[in-house]
Amino acid sequence: MLKLYEYASSGNCYKIRLLLNQLEIAYQRIPIDILKGESRTAEFLTMNPVGKTPALEIQPGQYLFESNAIIYYLADGTDFLPADRWERAQVMQWLFFEQYSHEPNIATVRFWISIANIAEQKREAIVQKQELGYAALRVMEQHLERSDYFVGNRYTIADIALYAYTHVAEEGNFELSKFPAILAWCDRIAHQPNYLTILA
Amino acid sequence: MLKLYEYASSGNCYKIRLLLNQLEIAYQRIPIDILKGESRTAEFLTMNPVGKTPALEIQPGQYLFESNAIIYYLADGTDFLPADRWERAQVMQWLFFEQYSHEPNIATVRFWISIANIAEQKREAIVQKQELGYAALRVMEQHLERSDYFVGNRYTIADIALYAYTHVAEEGNFELSKFPAILAWCDRIAHQPNYLTILA
Repeated sequence: MLKLYEYASSGNCYKIRLLLNQLEIAYQRIPIDILKGESRTAEFLTMNPVGKTPALEIQPGQYLFESNAIIYYLADGTDFLPADRWERAQVMQWLFFEQYSHEPNIATVRFWISIANIAEQKREAIVQKQELGYAALRVMEQHLERSDYFVGNRYTIADIALYAYTHVAEEGNFELSKFPAILAWCDRIAHQPNYLTILA
Repeated sequence: MLKLYEYASSGNCYKIRLLLNQLEIAYQRIPIDILKGESRTAEFLTMNPVGKTPALEIQPGQYLFESNAIIYYLADGTDFLPADRWERAQVMQWLFFEQYSHEPNIATVRFWISIANIAEQKREAIVQKQELGYAALRVMEQHLERSDYFVGNRYTIADIALYAYTHVAEEGNFELSKFPAILAWCDRIAHQPNYLTILA
């Protein structure tokens, strides 16, 4: 059985749980408390040398890390990753956008404010990252004004990856009410078959 | 013909030129001077709403952005991207590692020191990013001590992506002499058929 080494409130880990639930694949959850340094132990580093959650154990001794690589792997050959070359490339584009322009800003600010509780000591960095996070949300809003989903006008792992931290962005003090197209898209995702909340 | 909108000394743009040369695909280079704000014009934002180079025009009006999505697209169906599902997932893993843990540190410090010439005003951020950049180099070194290439023991786009900013990391004052396995891997890449330097 697949084993997911995860920190439950991490959006990067939630992406994988959401997809696994939608694929109806059974798996085991192994909690890793990143606040207690459990992602930096010698044992964990053999699974993911980068020292971050998530890591997926596919079979004993076979591990995959990087959340978007994990959802790519799980979705490969299913409707969640298009077979068409151009559509697949666009999915990749949005997955890289998510990890480069969205997650480092929106997820990090949420983590500082609502998980690690270090907003005060990160005040200056939060200002910078909120500016960049809002820029990422504007790119999403502009796209979603013209399209119901990110690629091929249907639900794919591009939506799952971007949804993970967008729908909890208010925990990083981002005002989503400014982005009606994003809110409508979040609602469409929450109504997908086998949807799962981040708290489930 | 493919059109590559690029800033020549950017490693993200070089990845694409290197792969296109190795695939023997003809293309046109369109210079975008990021230091003059040319990646932020209204016209450029229609090609890439994120406002960064590179962007690839596949045909008039059809654009792809995010460097690793572009090399994924170009390599799809060739020997540079494995057909095997597990190998392809590992390529993805290293592409996301590159954009999350490597490029934001190693490329950014190189840009500040050797391209934008703002090392003095970025002094504090450089210290932080060099620490994270060295951590990424250690992950690479550890992997390359056991394997000649990143995935499947042969040259793929995972190597191209990681090579782009690693081989010029000394322009960000990273000492590569500490990493013999990385240096040997760089040498293997520089001897691939149809290799191209970043200055070509």
